[in-house]
This record gives sequence, structure tokens and C-alpha cells, in this order.
Amino acid sequence: MERQDKYEKITELAKRRGYFWPSYEIYGGTAGFINFGPLGAVMKHKLQDKWRDYFIRRQGMLEIETPIFAPKVVFDASGHIVHFREPMAQCSKCRAMFRADHLLVERGGVPSSEAERLSLDELGTRLREMSILCPECGGEFTQPTSFQTMFKTTIGPYSEAVGYGRPEAAQGMFTDFKRLYEVERGKLPMGAAQVGKAVRNEISPRQGPIRLREFTIMEFEFFFDPAEPHCPKLSQVKRDELRLVLETNRLNGREEPTVVTVQQAVEQRFIKAEWMAYFLALAQAFVRELGVPAERQRFIEKLPWERAHYAAQSFDQEVLLERWGWVEVSGHAYRTDYDLRRHMEFSGQDMTVFRAFAQPRSVKRLRIRPVAQKLGPAFKQDAPAVINALEQSDAQAVKASLDEKGFYELSLGRVYADQVEVLEEQLEEAGERFIPHVVEPSFGAERLVYVTMEYAVKEREDRLITALPLDIAPIEAVVLPLVSRDGLPERAESLYKTLLDAGLCVEYDDAGSIGRRYVRADEMGVPLAATVDYETLANNTVTLRDRDSWEQVRSPVNGLGDVIRRYCDGRASFADLGVPMKRNG
Amino acid sequence: MERQDKYEKITELAKRRGYFWPSYEIYGGTAGFINFGPLGAVMKHKLQDKWRDYFIRRQGMLEIETPIFAPKVVFDASGHIVHFREPMAQCSKCRAMFRADHLLVERGGVPSSEAERLSLDELGTRLREMSILCPECGGEFTQPTSFQTMFKTTIGPYSEAVGYGRPEAAQGMFTDFKRLYEVERGKLPMGAAQVGKAVRNEISPRQGPIRLREFTIMEFEFFFDPAEPHCPKLSQVKRDELRLVLETNRLNGREEPTVVTVQQAVEQRFIKAEWMAYFLALAQAFVRELGVPAERQRFIEKLPWERAHYAAQSFDQEVLLERWGWVEVSGHAYRTDYDLRRHMEFSGQDMTVFRAFAQPRSVKRLRIRPVAQKLGPAFKQDAPAVINALEQSDAQAVKASLDEKGFYELSLGRVYADQVEVLEEQLEEAGERFIPHVVEPSFGAERLVYVTMEYAVKEREDRLITALPLDIAPIEAVVLPLVSRDGLPERAESLYKTLLDAGLCVEYDDAGSIGRRYVRADEMGVPLAATVDYETLANNTVTLRDRDSWEQVRSPVNGLGDVIRRYCDGRASFADLGVPMKRNG
Repeated sequence: MERQDKYEKITELAKRRGYFWPSYEIYGGTAGFINFGPLGAVMKHKLQDKWRDYFIRRQGMLEIETPIFAPKVVFDASGHIVHFREPMAQCSKCRAMFRADHLLVERGGVPSSEAERLSLDELGTRLREMSILCPECGGEFTQPTSFQTMFKTTIGPYSEAVGYGRPEAAQGMFTDFKRLYEVERGKLPMGAAQVGKAVRNEISPRQGPIRLREFTIMEFEFFFDPAEPHCPKLSQVKRDELRLVLETNRLNGREEPTVVTVQQAVEQRFIKAEWMAYFLALAQAFVRELGVPAERQRFIEKLPWERAHYAAQSFDQEVLLERWGWVEVSGHAYRTDYDLRRHMEFSGQDMTVFRAFAQPRSVKRLRIRPVAQKLGPAFKQDAPAVINALEQSDAQAVKASLDEKGFYELSLGRVYADQVEVLEEQLEEAGERFIPHVVEPSFGAERLVYVTMEYAVKEREDRLITALPLDIAPIEAVVLPLVSRDGLPERAESLYKTLLDAGLCVEYDDAGSIGRRYVRADEMGVPLAATVDYETLANNTVTLRDRDSWEQVRSPVNGLGDVIRRYCDGRASFADLGVPMKRNG
Repeated sequence: MERQDKYEKITELAKRRGYFWPSYEIYGGTAGFINFGPLGAVMKHKLQDKWRDYFIRRQGMLEIETPIFAPKVVFDASGHIVHFREPMAQCSKCRAMFRADHLLVERGGVPSSEAERLSLDELGTRLREMSILCPECGGEFTQPTSFQTMFKTTIGPYSEAVGYGRPEAAQGMFTDFKRLYEVERGKLPMGAAQVGKAVRNEISPRQGPIRLREFTIMEFEFFFDPAEPHCPKLSQVKRDELRLVLETNRLNGREEPTVVTVQQAVEQRFIKAEWMAYFLALAQAFVRELGVPAERQRFIEKLPWERAHYAAQSFDQEVLLERWGWVEVSGHAYRTDYDLRRHMEFSGQDMTVFRAFAQPRSVKRLRIRPVAQKLGPAFKQDAPAVINALEQSDAQAVKASLDEKGFYELSLGRVYADQVEVLEEQLEEAGERFIPHVVEPSFGAERLVYVTMEYAVKEREDRLITALPLDIAPIEAVVLPLVSRDGLPERAESLYKTLLDAGLCVEYDDAGSIGRRYVRADEMGVPLAATVDYETLANNTVTLRDRDSWEQVRSPVNGLGDVIRRYCDGRASFADLGVPMKRNG
């Protein structure tokens, strides 16, 4: 058998132990979908809850939940109907379809940032020039077309009621902005977050858990006043070092990271919004807590043609993987006021908020007062409409036209200087209205599950240890009777029930030798194994074994639930859990 | 203004305080979709986690996570393509579409169990006979048709790759059965659960959060050996009383509940599977913990034509609501081996498991041995095919045909008694293979959120108190400085941060009088308000106020996080939290 790479080892372990596997296997599988088994589902859930705790609860953000399906108008407004597309090449012979730019990258060695920039025509030309043929049958490709990568459906029985599965959760936050702003009683900045499913109808996804058609997005939209862009929390992270692969370098063909502190990145304007810099630092720290050292992370600034249509600047947080190279785990976009402005245009609803001036400002304002006595005889039955039109019109424009031409043209006819008065009024204004700006960090839960697995799985004495971070390990402890006689199973079962009642995720395992059970627990990623043995009967203590070091301590059964909880929460070290014993693999 | 009913009061409170509101409001709304605001999303999440703890962790079930979208073959196998349909009537004038049976129920007063039974033809006849016209325009209805109530889409770029949004999570558990059974190393019974989104393309949903097109299902499939149907946990609940509205009574027009203990329900065969009885009792206890007394719950047995196509018996757990009457919050179906059998047929994959006999059994088995010397001359070049066909055929049938007619008919011709030998072999069998049976409880999270709200909201002194169960209240405590001067805000903010660091969901509120802030906290459903006052500066204690009784105690700031946690977890009563003070609304 060939030597397996880490990806293969992990996907095999994942199947064997119940972390994840491809969906619909009994029907031959469907690319781009993944199932989480009993360990994976709980780990993913814990990872999501850790994210919630990190980015929502501790940051004082608002979590909301909005539907996956939305009517078309939402994505007309968001720009996704027009922009959320990928170039697709079809084989003229076998009709198989592929991402045209991926063909150039994978089969022609074209750098992906270059391939992404090409138009459909250019992609077709390059495919022909480079003689790239169908990987399935060797046929030639037809001219690439643009494929809308959203799942389309109809909502209800009317065929015209087109709807889509959301490709991001963001639009839920934008369409709800005004209600959230009200619930929060008009506070800015304000962050609104979601953890939920999103779907992208990828043309031909591969890479298992890395590129999915259905995935869990964890993202928030952080709304702030662009006139007050200062992030008061920045000082908490200002000394953190970030590895930035900057646009200016990338445009010159250089992909090495610029290592700067958060403070330098802001001062040197590498990052355009202070809040974005703060969130990059949080994202790096979060992924570090999942087990990926900062040196294996980088933030790559997207080039103009790589950026989403709504972004003024964006960074992808990438993690280095053995098989796949640098892989995105979160995206950070400065969306400015793009989305709220578009929804304002498409819905006709006001999305502006009020900004009070420090002191009321005295402003001069022109106002047009129609002179009814003159307009009546001139326009007769049209006079009311003319008066109305004048009241609606831009006073500045009316004055300019009168000054220049002596009249102002309406669709109903010309209005002359004697038919209107131009008044200059002095007003006190307490503030002004504006559309908030938005910075968006967006994480993919499935990728983070895979990344965490890849960094957690270690080889030791020819077997695999899944050394997951303690706070996201799906099972916190396993209870093992040393042997299946002399009352040990009864004692172990009773301990198991006690730990269950204490709220822990625990398992009971009495199958096979104690050594084999340790092997199984290590692979499953269980941080602690509690073995009930003859000494337990004598003095009510158990052996606790550490998954990572294989060290053992002796710990009292009384209060064990609390001890395990404190260990998995990071409030106690393994040495704190009991009296050390000699090592025993 | 007209007096509001409870539904209106709750939906207004829900909007005002951020529990829930209709989706896509800025675009005029889309029926059947709901958004959860900052309080609702957290409450829903806590409710789901409570369900997980109750039904998954404590019951030793396996949680998995499978996609919402699935290829068509999954629903061909499950029977949904054929059966998951509703009768739809369209107005001949304005083309509006409605659920035909709902029209009869709502506008013709036909009992819903009767309307559900009618064929499309019968529905059409009844609509005409009863002169039921379009509620929109008064037009006549065309003949009802059958509408497939699943969201349809295509997966990937090939138009023939039809997929659907899942109307239940169950098929994820069924298609994964064999893998789960392996991960569990062949243990039965075994329960596999999911908490996730499901979608049903309802024809014309109304009733706000009660009837949704997209909702969160919390369900598990409990696989057991039908030869070992005994539930060992039944004794834990055997004295619990259930209110069963039984099929036999309903068929005689009687809808009053039969009140029996779980034990009686099993002994009298009201409930066909012991595990189902156990889960009904758990479901009742769970909904009781959400605030609905058992007397406001009932289990209605579905009539044969009301049951889903896969169910041999089913009960709906219903809760009494003020506006909507009895509303289903969970469904319990005895699905037998229907789903696994169908997936076995459609996928060709073995879904059986092995049941060992207590002792190996000696069995007699007939075997057909083709006699090549005779078949060769008789069938010439077809002989090998004939031999193969005989080896594949049912030995019992061959013998019977030979005994009766003297030959056995194959498509290639007749085989006579001298051309085959019928052998009787004595075999030792260690066990046999069978398809597990399944009992499924399935809950709707959104309905439970609404039900919990309706039972929680109380009126007192002309205002609303959202007296949510302590363990699902989205915010556990609010910190209030008594006044905005003399260092109280600083002290309150520091307490707020301490509680946040202790892992609690807390808010800080300094807007308006202390009375108004109590009012706000009560409506938001915050169990405890911690007020920082002048005494706090003197002796480092705060006033804790109980949302439900408005009682107050004085409690030390040190250790307050732990005190609040214990109260919300149900491990301490309000009186335990400190020294009582005189009441002060």
C-alpha cells in the first residue's frame, strides 16, 4: 500500500471513528456534501459555540437567525444575481462541465489569481491555445459560459415566485438592519451575527470537506459610523503580529507575507478600517486556539478582480494544509455602505440613521415658494400640478436656471422668475442622516473542523492520536472498567452515570483489553480516560490517563465531574487532577 | 383599539424586544418564513441545546448532521416524491392558489380529519356543492390538483440532477444507518438524532410562527430489533399519566382524551411500541419543563388517512394555544422497517443486521444441484445459462414444481426431474439477518419557541412579564447602576465585565429610571436584575430582583457569577441568593 498523506489518514480516521464522511454514500455520493457523524457533529457544534462565545457573547454582538431561502429581490438588491457566477466550460463530446478557470490552473499551470481575471472569451482562447481537453474523455471544450452558482427554486405554488438558497448569511443582517437598530435603541457601532447554513451551487466541487455546496457560515456584519471609524478595542490587540500578503506586493508578483503588528498595519494603512484590523487579530487568535500556530496562518489581501463585488478591501485568512496548501478559513470584507444602500434603492425603505452634531449647526437653505396668483392665470387647470412640481424640485437647480436662462423648464411648461420666489432660510440642524459602513468577518465551520483535525492528529508509536483542543473534544471522558468481573463493571457504570448527571459528554467502554480501549479513546480524541480498577474498590479513586502525554494520575471519584469539567475548560492542568503515577502507555 | 388576543400581544412584544418577526419585511414579507432577533435566536438556541441534553446526551443517542439538500433518488426511496403532496385549488378568475382541504375546513366548517381524507375529485365536488369561492376575488375554483410540497432545485450544472430540500431530517439517519451501526460497533438499540433545518413548500401558509416553510426540526430515529421490543427504561416513567386521544374513539367521533399511565397504555396496547411510549412520556416531561402543564397537552393518535405513508401508528403531541387551539409540537411515528427496506431496494445496499440465536440452530435446507451430463445434451450452448439459472432459483419452488408437474419452467425451456438433483442439507446457523424497526419522535423548534412564549408571558399591573423558564431565558441577568453619577456606572460596568468573564449572558442598562429599566427587563424575560447602588460602594453588595415575584434580596458582589449560574440552572432558589429585602416593584 502506498504511503497515505495526512488528508487520507484523516478522512479514514474520520470515517472509522464517526467524524465525517461523504453524503449519500449508499447512492454513490453527491459531490460537495458532507455528513458529520456522532463525534464530528458534536465537535462541530462545540466549535460553533466557541465561535459564538468568542465573537458574539464576549464582543456584545447580536445573534440573529434568518432563513436560508429568500425571494429573488433580495439577491437582485445584493448584486448576487448579476455577480455570483463562475465561468463554466463544457466538453463538446461528453457534455461534462468544469470550472473554466480551474481547468487553466490545474491543467495549464496558470496562477489562480491570473485565471480569475480572465473574461469568458479569454478563458476560451486560453483553453484552446493551451490545448486543454476534457479530463473525462479528451474532447474539446465549447466556449465558456457564465453559470449562476446559487440554488434556485420557487417559493410556493406560483412559478414566478423565484427564490434562492442564500450563498451567505449576510443579507439577513442587512434586510433586518433597521429592526435591529431599533431593538438596540439606536446604538452604533452594532454587530449582528449568524451561524447557519449557506449554499453555493459549485460547478464541480472536489476536495472533500474543503469545498462544499452546503456549509455552515459563521459571520457577522459590524455596522459603524464612517465618520467615527475608531475602534476603541484596538489597544487590546495592537501588539499582535499579523502576516499580511499585501495587494501591492501581489501585483508585483510577490506573495511573501509582510509581518507587522496590528498597530503598524493600521498606521501604515495596510488595513483600511480599524475594526477590520481588530477582527483580523481576533480571527488569528481564535484559529490559534483551534491548534494552528500563527506562523501557519496568513492574511492574503484580495486583488481587485478577486474581490467580491461589494468589497472595497478584503483579506482571506488562510491556513497551511499538507495536501491543499494555503486554504481560506475566513474572509474579511470592508463592504462599506454597499448593501444597505442597495436595499434602500430596491425596497424604498430608509436605511439611514441619524448622527447628531456635537452642536446644532446653523445652515442656509434655499426654498422655492410658487406664486399662485401668477401661476394660476398662466397655467390654468395645470396650475396645481405645476405648484406641486415646483415644491418637489431642487431649489438650487431652479435658482441656477432662473439666474442663467430666466426660466425653469418643467414638463408642463416654462416657469419664469416672476412666478416663483426664491427664499433663503436660516435653519438649525441637530444632525444629519447617513448609511452606516460595514466590516464583515465570515468563517466556514466545516473547513475549521477539517483544519482543526489536521492540526490535532498526531502519530505516536505507529498509531494516531486525535489531540483536539480540550474545549471542542466531543467526548470529554471515557469510563473503563479494568476487567469485566469482580464488580468493576458495576462500579464503572455507576461512575459513568454520575458523570452523565454532572452534565458531561462521557462514554462507557468495556470492549477489549485496556490497551485497545486506550488506543480507541486516543483516536476518538477523548482527553481523559478514567479507569476503574481493584484500587477503586479499596479507596474510591480512579486512574486518569491523559490522551496527549499518556501520563496518569490517581484521582478521587468524589468530585470527579467537576475535576474533568475544569480540565476541559482550561481551568486546571493535567497535573492538577491528582497524584502522579508511573507512566503506563 | 380593539382588545388584543394573546397571539397579537406576543407577536408585538416579540418585535419590540427582538424575539421574532416576519422575514423580508422591507420587501413586503414572504409568508412562511420567520426571523429570530437577538433575544429569540439565543432563546431558540438554548431551547435546542436543552432538547439535545434531554434527548441526546442523557439518552446516549448519537447526534449527526447531514445536508438539507439531497438528490431526488433519496426521496424516491423514502416515498416523498409520490406521497409528499397536498391538494391545491386554484381560482379560475384571479389564479390564486389555496390548500383545497383547508378551504373546506376554514370556509365550509368541515372537520379537518374528514377533509384530509377526501380525494382530489371529492374535494372538487365538495367545493362546488358548498359554493366555496375564492377568498381573494370571489371566483370559482378549478378542479383541485396535487401539489408536491418540496422545494425543488438542481444540484450542479446538469439540469437532470434534480435535488430537493429535505422535508424532514430523518432520511439522513436512514441513509447513514450502516455507517452509524459500524461506528457503534454493532449495538442495538441505537438512536441517531439531528437538529437542523427542514423545508416544506406549503401552498399558502399563515399563522406566523406556527406554520412555516422553513423550520428547525429536532428529531431522532430510534432503531431496535423488533424481536426484542422491550424498553428497559420504561419503568422510569411507567406511572406518568398521558392524555391519549385514541384512534378507536376518534373513529367514533369522540375526541376526549383517555387518561392512562404509561404502563396502562402499553399493557392495553394503546401504544404499539414500548419505546414509543417511553418517548411520549419524555416528550410530555420536556414540554412541561418549557412551561406547559400536562393538562394543556395531549397525544392525538392519527387516523389511517392522516398518517404519513411510512407510519404504522403515530401520535401528535399537541399543546392548547389561545388563538390556534390544539397545535402539534411533536410527532411520534412508528416507522417500522419501511425506510431502511426502501433504501435497501433503491440503493442495492444491505441494510440488514445480524441477530445471533441464543444457541446455533440446526436447519434443513434444500439445494438444487444441476446434472451437467444431462443438461448439456438437452440445452447445448444454452446449458451454462440454464445451470446458472437453476443455481440462482428458489430450491423450494423447483422441488414443488417437479413434484407437481414433473418439470420446472425456465425462460430457456423446461427442466425435467432427471436433469437436477434435489439435495437436503443439514446446516448450523448462528443467527439471522433482519431490518431494524424504527420509532421516531420529531419536534419543531420554532413552534416550541412560540408555545413557550405564550405560556411564559403574563400580565401584571397592566404590563407584560416574559416569565421564561430560567434555563432558556436568553439573557440571564442585567446590571443596572441606580443612578448615572457618583461612581455607580463605573462600579456597574465593572460588575458587568466580571459576569461576562464568568461566561454569563448579561446586559448593561443605564437608560431611564430604574423603574423603566425593570419594566424593560421584565418584558425581555431577564430572570435577575442586579442593581448597583450607594450601598454597593459601602459594602460591595447588590440588590438582586426576581423577574417573576418582584421580590428582592441583597447579595455580595463576590461570587455573584456563580450565584446567578446556579439560579438559572435550577440549582438554587431565589431565596437562596441573598438576604431578603422589603418588596419594591
